[in-house]
Amino acid sequence: MKTTDLLAQVLKKNNLKCAFGLQGGAVVHIFDSLIKKNISVTFTHHEQSAALAAVSYAKSVNGIGCVVVTTGPGSTNSITGLLAAWQDSIPVIFISGQARAIHTSYKKKVRQVGTQEVNICDIVRPITKYTTFINQTKNFQIEIDKAIKIAISGRPGPVWIDIALDIQWQNIPLLKKIKKIIPKKIKINQTKKINKSIDLINKSTNPLFIIGYGAVLSGIDRKIINQTLIKKSIPSVLTWNTADLIPTNNKYNLGIVGMSGQRGANKAVFNSDLIVCLGNHLSIPHTTTLYKNYAPNAKKIIINIDKDQLKNLNVKFHLKINMDCKDYLQKIIKNLTKKKTYQLKQFKKLNWYEPLEKKIPNSNSFIRKLTTKIKNKKNIIIDGGGTALYAGFQSSVIDSKTKITCSSAISSMGTGLSETIGSHKSKKFYKHICIIGDGSFLMNCQDLQTIYQENINVLIIIVNNNGYLAIRHTQKEFLNERYFGTHPSDGISFPNFSRLAKAFKIKYKKINTIDKSKKFIQNCNKIKGPIIVDLIVDESQPSLFKQGYKKNADGSFAPSDLSEMYPFIKDPISNTNN
Amino acid sequence: MKTTDLLAQVLKKNNLKCAFGLQGGAVVHIFDSLIKKNISVTFTHHEQSAALAAVSYAKSVNGIGCVVVTTGPGSTNSITGLLAAWQDSIPVIFISGQARAIHTSYKKKVRQVGTQEVNICDIVRPITKYTTFINQTKNFQIEIDKAIKIAISGRPGPVWIDIALDIQWQNIPLLKKIKKIIPKKIKINQTKKINKSIDLINKSTNPLFIIGYGAVLSGIDRKIINQTLIKKSIPSVLTWNTADLIPTNNKYNLGIVGMSGQRGANKAVFNSDLIVCLGNHLSIPHTTTLYKNYAPNAKKIIINIDKDQLKNLNVKFHLKINMDCKDYLQKIIKNLTKKKTYQLKQFKKLNWYEPLEKKIPNSNSFIRKLTTKIKNKKNIIIDGGGTALYAGFQSSVIDSKTKITCSSAISSMGTGLSETIGSHKSKKFYKHICIIGDGSFLMNCQDLQTIYQENINVLIIIVNNNGYLAIRHTQKEFLNERYFGTHPSDGISFPNFSRLAKAFKIKYKKINTIDKSKKFIQNCNKIKGPIIVDLIVDESQPSLFKQGYKKNADGSFAPSDLSEMYPFIKDPISNTNN
Repeated sequence: MKTTDLLAQVLKKNNLKCAFGLQGGAVVHIFDSLIKKNISVTFTHHEQSAALAAVSYAKSVNGIGCVVVTTGPGSTNSITGLLAAWQDSIPVIFISGQARAIHTSYKKKVRQVGTQEVNICDIVRPITKYTTFINQTKNFQIEIDKAIKIAISGRPGPVWIDIALDIQWQNIPLLKKIKKIIPKKIKINQTKKINKSIDLINKSTNPLFIIGYGAVLSGIDRKIINQTLIKKSIPSVLTWNTADLIPTNNKYNLGIVGMSGQRGANKAVFNSDLIVCLGNHLSIPHTTTLYKNYAPNAKKIIINIDKDQLKNLNVKFHLKINMDCKDYLQKIIKNLTKKKTYQLKQFKKLNWYEPLEKKIPNSNSFIRKLTTKIKNKKNIIIDGGGTALYAGFQSSVIDSKTKITCSSAISSMGTGLSETIGSHKSKKFYKHICIIGDGSFLMNCQDLQTIYQENINVLIIIVNNNGYLAIRHTQKEFLNERYFGTHPSDGISFPNFSRLAKAFKIKYKKINTIDKSKKFIQNCNKIKGPIIVDLIVDESQPSLFKQGYKKNADGSFAPSDLSEMYPFIKDPISNTNN
Repeated sequence: MKTTDLLAQVLKKNNLKCAFGLQGGAVVHIFDSLIKKNISVTFTHHEQSAALAAVSYAKSVNGIGCVVVTTGPGSTNSITGLLAAWQDSIPVIFISGQARAIHTSYKKKVRQVGTQEVNICDIVRPITKYTTFINQTKNFQIEIDKAIKIAISGRPGPVWIDIALDIQWQNIPLLKKIKKIIPKKIKINQTKKINKSIDLINKSTNPLFIIGYGAVLSGIDRKIINQTLIKKSIPSVLTWNTADLIPTNNKYNLGIVGMSGQRGANKAVFNSDLIVCLGNHLSIPHTTTLYKNYAPNAKKIIINIDKDQLKNLNVKFHLKINMDCKDYLQKIIKNLTKKKTYQLKQFKKLNWYEPLEKKIPNSNSFIRKLTTKIKNKKNIIIDGGGTALYAGFQSSVIDSKTKITCSSAISSMGTGLSETIGSHKSKKFYKHICIIGDGSFLMNCQDLQTIYQENINVLIIIVNNNGYLAIRHTQKEFLNERYFGTHPSDGISFPNFSRLAKAFKIKYKKINTIDKSKKFIQNCNKIKGPIIVDLIVDESQPSLFKQGYKKNADGSFAPSDLSEMYPFIKDPISNTNN
């Protein structure tokens, strides 16, 4: 069998239905084999887009993703997507074509040997679970299997397979039957610790689960949460990546935690006497840098499959359990006593307030109404750029048919359009809403062509504040308003988005008044995408919630913890828009 | 002094007038200091663009370039530009903002610690000369100096300086006076070898210098070539990166060597009895994979400053001299006897033939005429993508005021627009011509906004063959015409470039007939850019010259060496367009 045909068969056997990439001299054989095996390949206009699309696809199907890129710059162009997979723990198989086996610079002290060649494995090794350069046929099948197994075992993550060009057209015998690869299970006896955690939960007055994406990766879904935590009346708070695990309006969902989360959710954490981190390790975006005093009144339990992560925690935990989150939940649930519901409403109601809208729309208000109104099975894609990102998570209303997707660990400007492409290819959603800032929108605008070509039913909501608002906030606070590179008045400019939409044959709608905003939301269910919605917001619109700072007597600033988010609630609400 | 102010002063002292980057929370202090020090910062719309612009800027001024990028994805987005600097040996200082010193994942077995944080130094180390994470103030000045010194010493190349956020606003004392940094000179006594080389050159009948970019990096310029090799009637052939070192029409410039070079130049190499590689190491793009039989009748000398490179050569050299190219040339020149000029014309005339043009323009013909006609001081920027790249080098006519720029080692699609920005900022040129394929053009089209904003006098020549022609050639030859992802009929499509131009307020001109082509060239000196020239060429236009293949009796193909390029000259010229 031709090596690349074998590769395609293994991927297909592992449920891969779609791959993403861009053609190149060193990958024509690989694409040819994927397509022969009926794997649907989306050819994007930049390898960065392909990689981000694959990550988003893998999230949408909760399975593996696959990216194929050519040698040299084709490979390096995909590294930001690789980083997204690495830091969000997504099993994506990166496959690169390489120069011929003898024409590589591996282990040589030179900068290049073959045409367009680079020792890509050495570059990506720090941010992959496994990296292999295949330069001989005899270990081809073994290496492919091994890479996929590592990607999906334990804490998932990306792997990189670099295949020498002259290996790609070789014929090899099958060493073993091609089968679906089963993740390696880690068996550790944690009975004592599990029992201790049950005891702590049962004894606590107001326990709170903080559910991170590790839970989802272990197979925990809405149904399981319903049958376990919610059945036992135990409330949870969520993170960006798990925000869709419990509908927004469910009584036991107390909201999204973190620096750019919601007021009530963070308050609930600080009010709790026991927090259980399930697949979440309380990283800085969740705790702020004041992690030493995070939720000081709560005992803390962590369940995590990654034992290295358990050795590197900022927050002090009372109990660390190294195991699969789903196994843990299933083991404890029958021993938990049903909780007497304490006052959850007081927290939930703090997760939203209606921001002031005078003449022009407020993005939070718009997103709130839009996501409430659209009832179809949808995926809300949140681009990683600044204020649109915060508004997307702080304001979206998520019902039981809605998914929300974001490369949250990298929080990178310019991810939203590519992720929309990947999610669309999963065929899991009727509609997409992509929430993206104007700065981010331009960064990978080549993706608009793929969105047009695939005729994706997406509302691309540009939160247009004329530049990089989040950074302007920083410049205002810490650089005495010396602004550079964040606004048309100081070195960065933007094209006419209406004309840009036209270039890509995508519909365009500008919303710059409250009236237009109302009208659009009224009709939003009738609108079929792709359409670009240019939402013109106040250039200095404040975040709905953010970490507060308090001014010291000497004029310096000290950050506040998340027990109270800014705008501080004791101030009159009318001040919150200043 | 504030650390970032010190950094700006050191850069300024080292003649850095321009930097490139994109704002971000972790770099506001760095940009603020650069701007305070009157370093002109260009804020691009993608970190990839900033990095490529900096490489091109550094080439234009033959000095250092500088890129500033923020944490995490901001850093990884710039890696393709870093690779360009590494493989083309360009001294570019990459500066990244990092999370606070204690919030990094360096040396920890975790995937992320701080917000948007990544251990970037570990990723970029394989493709930089020096990488440093500055997490304390005491070594700040030392590390900055050290990094710059390494970048410019020996074989130049990029360095990466990662600066923790909380170091950026610290005040530190000056450890020493800020001075221009002098590259470290490598002193090796090579007198014996130098003398031997003189002897070989003097004894040879038809010696030929192959001048690579290492020569330019050592300080060899047109004037020096005139005063040395040309004075002694010794001919040279050039590479992509040195194609502007001797005007095309100079008698002693026998053209561009390599797989995608020119027929006469390659023939001259195979005809020579002695080749002297000055700052060039005969890599695969120059020799093809048939390097074992490269120029078999010639003795070969190599002069290279990089001793590791001399230990890793494909071609067998008779004499290897590890020293600075300029020093070498100056040492040998007075001892060289003036050569009796052998028949150079026979080679020169083979470097061009007029391709058949029936109804629609041929890109080679167009580029030939355009570059001949424009007499201003100009930089021809050649994008790295396929057939436009080959046409750019095979057909451009370079006079004494013309520079030609390309990230040739990476040969990456999508580099041209960014490189135009960098070159423009050098203020060295009146005009730019950017030659770019339609596939490449879309890849980083966000750069059009910067080109508009900077009002760059550039003719952007899109060689529009409706997809990826170079890869289609491969699919045709090796995959029985199974085409995927290279043409609108098989999975990749393109927007209307006229409308795209309009979106960025850039003039647009479509040229799809010979008449329009003639008219445009007639008037080209009157046209002020930016303007997009959409040159519609034959979708299967053959390359002017390429490596030939010969069909074996069994139906397989065997590549031919470069002593004869395809189209083979013994075939009638009318066949060359098939």
